[in-house]
Amino acid sequence: MNYKFIGNVIGRILCVEAAVLVPAVGVSLFYREFRTALAILISAAVTAVAGLLLLLPKAGKKNYYAREGFVSVGLAWIVISLFGALPFFLDGAIPNFLDCVFETISGFTTTGASILTDVEALPRGLLYWRSFTHWLGGMGVLVFLLALHPMTKGKGQSMYLMRAESPGPEVAKLVPKVQKSAMILYGIYCGLTLLQILLQALGGMPLFDNITTAFGTAGTGGFGIKADSIAGYSPYLQVVVTVFMALFGVNFGVYYLFLARKPLQALKSAELRIYVAILVISTALITVNILPQYSGVGESLRHAAFQVSSIMTTTGFATTNFDLWPEFSKAILLMLMVVGACAGSTGGGIKVSRVLLMLKAMKREHRRTVSPKTVSIIKLDGKVVDNDTLSGIWFYMTAYSVILVGSVLAVSLNNFGLETTISSVVACLNNIGPGFGVAGPMGGYADFSPLSKVVLCLNMLLGRLEIFPLLMLCAPISWRKSFGARGGR
Amino acid sequence: MNYKFIGNVIGRILCVEAAVLVPAVGVSLFYREFRTALAILISAAVTAVAGLLLLLPKAGKKNYYAREGFVSVGLAWIVISLFGALPFFLDGAIPNFLDCVFETISGFTTTGASILTDVEALPRGLLYWRSFTHWLGGMGVLVFLLALHPMTKGKGQSMYLMRAESPGPEVAKLVPKVQKSAMILYGIYCGLTLLQILLQALGGMPLFDNITTAFGTAGTGGFGIKADSIAGYSPYLQVVVTVFMALFGVNFGVYYLFLARKPLQALKSAELRIYVAILVISTALITVNILPQYSGVGESLRHAAFQVSSIMTTTGFATTNFDLWPEFSKAILLMLMVVGACAGSTGGGIKVSRVLLMLKAMKREHRRTVSPKTVSIIKLDGKVVDNDTLSGIWFYMTAYSVILVGSVLAVSLNNFGLETTISSVVACLNNIGPGFGVAGPMGGYADFSPLSKVVLCLNMLLGRLEIFPLLMLCAPISWRKSFGARGGR
Repeated sequence: MNYKFIGNVIGRILCVEAAVLVPAVGVSLFYREFRTALAILISAAVTAVAGLLLLLPKAGKKNYYAREGFVSVGLAWIVISLFGALPFFLDGAIPNFLDCVFETISGFTTTGASILTDVEALPRGLLYWRSFTHWLGGMGVLVFLLALHPMTKGKGQSMYLMRAESPGPEVAKLVPKVQKSAMILYGIYCGLTLLQILLQALGGMPLFDNITTAFGTAGTGGFGIKADSIAGYSPYLQVVVTVFMALFGVNFGVYYLFLARKPLQALKSAELRIYVAILVISTALITVNILPQYSGVGESLRHAAFQVSSIMTTTGFATTNFDLWPEFSKAILLMLMVVGACAGSTGGGIKVSRVLLMLKAMKREHRRTVSPKTVSIIKLDGKVVDNDTLSGIWFYMTAYSVILVGSVLAVSLNNFGLETTISSVVACLNNIGPGFGVAGPMGGYADFSPLSKVVLCLNMLLGRLEIFPLLMLCAPISWRKSFGARGGR
Repeated sequence: MNYKFIGNVIGRILCVEAAVLVPAVGVSLFYREFRTALAILISAAVTAVAGLLLLLPKAGKKNYYAREGFVSVGLAWIVISLFGALPFFLDGAIPNFLDCVFETISGFTTTGASILTDVEALPRGLLYWRSFTHWLGGMGVLVFLLALHPMTKGKGQSMYLMRAESPGPEVAKLVPKVQKSAMILYGIYCGLTLLQILLQALGGMPLFDNITTAFGTAGTGGFGIKADSIAGYSPYLQVVVTVFMALFGVNFGVYYLFLARKPLQALKSAELRIYVAILVISTALITVNILPQYSGVGESLRHAAFQVSSIMTTTGFATTNFDLWPEFSKAILLMLMVVGACAGSTGGGIKVSRVLLMLKAMKREHRRTVSPKTVSIIKLDGKVVDNDTLSGIWFYMTAYSVILVGSVLAVSLNNFGLETTISSVVACLNNIGPGFGVAGPMGGYADFSPLSKVVLCLNMLLGRLEIFPLLMLCAPISWRKSFGARGGR
C-alpha cells in the first residue's frame, strides 16, 4: 500500500476544503453573524493546518493502482465530513457532534437528510456552507481536485481516483485525458448551475435563496433553507427547480455530446430514453392518482412532476407533504427511490443504466434457456457490455442488499414502524433524504437513536461512493502486504 | 412445440388429481357432510373426464426438451388449481370462484394465504382437501407423477419436468434415474410425515387435527383448521411442529445422504450449516427482544423458535400474533421471509443456497478488483459452481425484483399501507402466507380487491415454480415455430 500517496491525496483535499470554507466566512460577515464567522474561520484554519501537515512528506515516485484509488477516495470522504462538521459544532448551532457529522455527510453525499428541527433558525453562514457541501459533493470532491491540478504524471493513473468516485457501472471518461474530462464535467456543471441561478433570478427569487437552492438542485442534494422546502415559492420557480433537478439527473456524457455537436448521438442514449420515459409515466400516473387531493389537473401535475423529479434524481426537495398521498403514488415514489438517476450524473440510487443492463442480462438468460445453442451478447448504445461490467453490477446489487438488510435490522430498534425504517434506510442509502413516516418530507432524522444515525451515515457514504471504496477500506485483503506481488505493484 | 406431449402430461395430472379427491369424499361422508361429499364427488368426476379426454390422442414418439418441460409444468399448475377449486365452489362454502381459486393456488403452492374469515365454519371434507393440497404441492405434483409412472422411455428427458418443478439453483437429482430420484424423495417425504403424525398422536392431538396439521407442516404450507392456527395446542405439540417445520425446510438430499449411510457428508453441507445458523441466531435475537411481552424465557423462546421456523421455512403457522412484536423482531422475520428455506426442500423463498452463492460471487468480485490477475472459482460443498448456474441466479433475482415491484404497485391500490402491501406481496411471492398488518397472522386476504387477488395468485405460482415455467408460458419466443431449428429439436 502506497501510504505516502494516500496521505498526499487527503492533504490536498483538506487544503481545498479549507479554501472553500472561506466564502462562508464572508457570508457570515455580510449578515453580521460574527460568532458564526469566527467558528467557520477557526474550522478553515484547523482544516488547512491538518492538510498542510499531511502534505509535508514528499509523495515520492511510487506508482499506485486501483487499490490506492479506492482507499484514498473512501478515506477522503470520511475525513472531509469530519472537518466539514466543525463549523456547525464550533458555532454551537448543532450541539451534538454526531449530529454535526450526520448533517455534513448528508451534505457531501447530496442526501439531504437532516437532523435539524428548525432549519430557519440556523445562521446564514452555516446555511450557505450546508448547501455548498451539496454542490461540491455532487460532482465529486476528487473530480474537483483532478480538475484543478493533475495528480500524477503517470499515464492513466488518475483514472483510478475518478473511477472510485464516479457513479454508475462504467466510468464516465469523456476524453482520453482524465484531467481534461474532469474539467469538462465541472465546466458543464458550473454552466448549468449558473443558468438555473439566472432563471430563478428572473422569477424574483432572493439572492441567498437562489444560490442555496441552486446548490441543492445541482448536487441533487435537497437541503433547503426553509421549513417547507420549496413549497413557499411561486409555481414558476417550482417548475424551474423541477426541470433542473431532472437535468442534473442526466448523464453528463449526454451534455458533452451536445457540446461536441453530436446531438443525434446524445438523444440515442438508451439510458436517457428510459430515464425520460420513467419520469413521464410516473408523473402521469401520480397526477391522476392524487387529483382528488388538489384543486385541479394543473396543480396536481405540478406537484406530481416536482416530487417525481425530486425523488428519482434523489434530490429530496418537496413542494407538498407526499407522505399524505395515496399509497399507489407512494409505492411509485419508493420504486423511483431505488432506481435513482442516470449513471454519470450527480444523482444517486442504483442508476438507470444498471437496471437496464440487469434487464438485458435477464432477457439473454431467458433466450439461452429456450435455445441453448444461441450465443448472445449484451449491447448498450451499440457497444458490447463485457462480463466484467456485469459481474460488477451483480457484486453491487448483492452488497447493496446485504447492506440494506443489516441497516434495516439496526434502524428497526427505534420501533418507528417498518414503513419509516425501510424508507429511511433506502432514502439514505440512495442519497435521497426524506422517506416516509417519521422520516417523511415534513419530518426529520432528529429523533433517531445514535446507533441509527451512525448506520445511516454509513449508508449515505456507501450509497454515494457505490460501496466499493468503503469496502476496500475495511477489508483486510486490501491492506495485506503480500498483495503487491499478486496485484502487480 | 410438442403439443401432444403437453396434453398428455396435463391429462395424467388431472387423473391423479381426480384420484386424490376421492379420500376427501370419504372424509365428508364420515362426518355426515353429504352436500360436501356430493360436491367433491362431482368435482372428481369432472376432473377425471377432462383428464381422460386429454389422454385420448396418443402422445406419439416425438422428443421433448426443456421448453416443453417448463411449459407443461406452468400449465399443469394452473389447470390443477382451477379444477382443485371446484369442491369449494360447488359446495358453496366459498361463493366467489376467484376466492376458491385463490385458496386452491395458495394450497398447492404451499403458501397458506387464506381469504376465509372463519376457517372453522368450513366442512371437514373441504378442510381435509385444503390441507391435502399442501402435502401434494409441497414435494411437487409432477414429481409425484414421475414417482408413480415413468413419463418417457427417452433417456434423461423426464429431467426437464423435474427441473422445472424443483426449487433451488440446481436440480436435486439424487440418483442417475429420474424416476428413482422421485420415488426416493416421496419415500423420505412420506416417512417424515408419518413420524410427525406419530409424535403428534403421542401428544394427544385428535386424529383429524393431527393429519391436517401434518399435511400443512410437511408441505410447509400453513393452512390450519383453527382460527388461532397452532396457538391452542399444548406446548409439546407446538415444539413438535416447530421441529418438523425446520426438518421439512432442509434439502432432502441431506436425508438421502443419511439413508445412504454418509452422515458426515450430509452434515458438511454448507447450505445446511448456514440454514441452522440462521434459525438459531434469529431465534436467540427474537427471544431476547420479545421477552417483556411474555411470562418468561421459556415461553418467549418457544414462541420465537416456532415463528422463526414457520417463517423461514415459509410455512406460515403461528402460535402468537407476531404482528404485535417489536419492530426489530418483525424486521428479522421479514428478512427470513425473503431468504426462505433450503433448495430441494418443500419450503419457498429465494433459498439459502442462492443467497450463499450470491455472497460467494460477491467475495470473488471483490478479490478480483483488488488483484485482477487472480483467477478464482466458486465452490459449494467442494464442487465447482459453473457460470451458467450463477447466470441463472442473477436471472432469477432480477425477475424476482421486477415481479416484486410490479406487484407492490398493483396491490398498493388497496391503500392498506406500505407495510401490509409489501409484506403481503413478499408473503405470497415466497409462499409464506401471513404478512404484517391487514395480512397479518390474525388477519387475512378476504378484503383485498379482485385485482390484488389475481396478482397475488400469480405471485404464489411464480414463487412456487421459481418464475421460469410461467415466464416460458407467456413469452412469445417459447411458442415460435422457428425455435425447433435453433433449439435442437
